[in-house]
Amino acid sequence: MGKYCFGVDVGGTTVKLGVFNTDGDLLEKWEIPTVTEDGGKKILPDIARSILREMDEREMERDEVVGVGIGAPGPVDSEGTIYGAVNLGWGTFSLKKELQILLNLPVEAGNDANVAALGEMWQGGARGYRNVVLVTLGTGVGGGIIVEGKILPGSTGAGGEIGHLHVNDKETIPCNCGNKGCLEQYVSATGMVRMAREKLAAQRREGILSRIPADKLCAKDVWDAVKAGDPLAAEVAEDFGWYLGKAMAGVACVVNPEIFVIGGGVSKAGDILIDYVQKNYSKYAFRGCKGALFTLAKLGNDAGIYGAAKLVLD
Amino acid sequence: MGKYCFGVDVGGTTVKLGVFNTDGDLLEKWEIPTVTEDGGKKILPDIARSILREMDEREMERDEVVGVGIGAPGPVDSEGTIYGAVNLGWGTFSLKKELQILLNLPVEAGNDANVAALGEMWQGGARGYRNVVLVTLGTGVGGGIIVEGKILPGSTGAGGEIGHLHVNDKETIPCNCGNKGCLEQYVSATGMVRMAREKLAAQRREGILSRIPADKLCAKDVWDAVKAGDPLAAEVAEDFGWYLGKAMAGVACVVNPEIFVIGGGVSKAGDILIDYVQKNYSKYAFRGCKGALFTLAKLGNDAGIYGAAKLVLD
Repeated sequence: MGKYCFGVDVGGTTVKLGVFNTDGDLLEKWEIPTVTEDGGKKILPDIARSILREMDEREMERDEVVGVGIGAPGPVDSEGTIYGAVNLGWGTFSLKKELQILLNLPVEAGNDANVAALGEMWQGGARGYRNVVLVTLGTGVGGGIIVEGKILPGSTGAGGEIGHLHVNDKETIPCNCGNKGCLEQYVSATGMVRMAREKLAAQRREGILSRIPADKLCAKDVWDAVKAGDPLAAEVAEDFGWYLGKAMAGVACVVNPEIFVIGGGVSKAGDILIDYVQKNYSKYAFRGCKGALFTLAKLGNDAGIYGAAKLVLD
Repeated sequence: MGKYCFGVDVGGTTVKLGVFNTDGDLLEKWEIPTVTEDGGKKILPDIARSILREMDEREMERDEVVGVGIGAPGPVDSEGTIYGAVNLGWGTFSLKKELQILLNLPVEAGNDANVAALGEMWQGGARGYRNVVLVTLGTGVGGGIIVEGKILPGSTGAGGEIGHLHVNDKETIPCNCGNKGCLEQYVSATGMVRMAREKLAAQRREGILSRIPADKLCAKDVWDAVKAGDPLAAEVAEDFGWYLGKAMAGVACVVNPEIFVIGGGVSKAGDILIDYVQKNYSKYAFRGCKGALFTLAKLGNDAGIYGAAKLVLD
């Protein structure tokens, strides 16, 4: 009987790996570099070698391992096919089958943001819930949707791409995706800094943020200033909460989750961020969805390995 | 072995019933009145009696019937509990269990709009697809989401309530739900008429629509005028397409369907309606979702009984 499972989270710089027991305890985690040269063709062999070495060191038998789950930064469908991962140099192929061949173990694969949502449901901020939306606020905005305990990958692996919800008809600057007015343009770390800079330039107001050199300003500075009572920073936080709360009300009309989990670097601001979002969510949410909860993510950078491991337990 | 199944679609005035073979052929359909007095307590017994009589007339054995599916106009969760149906006088109870007790047959229950989406997937406009969004444009706007062949009911039965997606920040008139700027306020039959009246009042332009008495104007008049080349009606159609296309691009960022099916009375306008929507969808959709198809619903008022029957075959 399987007692262990592995979770793998492939990033552009490092691959995170973890070994878990089937109760969901992380026994050990480690990292290896992501070798993106030659179309990233070494990445899966490196992962396989690292897992087999760990099994060897722990004197694990093959039949003690339920399987290996892997999350990767690209669209992955319900069959485990990845449709390209620009940061890794990967094209389209069956991530699930390729790793399965290298390991001779059951493998399941998913998109990294979706897999992180599964991790937060399993052992993180949404533990105990089965209908979950994770929003990851980092340099960009990622998302993952869990319906009845399972990832919603979407027909082409673009399920939960909530960073690209259209939220502003008046935007003139394009998003990285090419569209204009995407949620990511306002509530990512980059987006918050842009909103702050625009307000500083337009208002020429003295305050905490005006004393920080424009090229050094980061999202943490904005939230620190909000906490210190800075009026301009509070305006940025209001706009942040309005965009995100309104967008989550839209997401709720579609998938009607029990709980929203906010993660990523920006979420380190803490509970104050939840307050700004929830206030606007309540205003815009359809009555049947108003009871949804909001919470902060708990697993940080480990959400990916947790969720990947959970993939093979389902 | 089961050879037949029943589909029931409960409306505010009539209950539609159908008997199908398990290949999905509708063998017979009929209607009974919906008796809403006394908190609608006669509705389920009336349905049960009608089904048992049909079985009797067809000399069906109980073990030849796979089961009975039922769709009702209220939020229904994955366990078959309905959380009230205002039009029927119903409160919260297990629709599935109550009908099961009356029939002594397997029963499955769902929300009427969600069940209609399942019907369109099974034998209608989305036949052959497994990731489907149905938008029903009637007096209001309903929706149903099918993920990997199954209804997405949502945690409180409010999944697919896409009529209440917020699409207009400037709206001052409240929607029936109490919020302002819901999709339903623009793309329902009522919404199209309102947009046409507002343009007529503001512009005092002569044209096809200005010759129809304001209290007689209906959505069909608007589409007929669009087809006849009326410029004001074309503006209404542009706005209709902009609201619906933009909203569907948002839905795609969440559930990434293969196909959108447009149904309800307004969809009788035909393919011209699809053109207006798809143009705007393509503009706003995230790149991974741009390939989604658009089509018209095919089953009309029978979508509900088809989908209800399919509930018990899954």
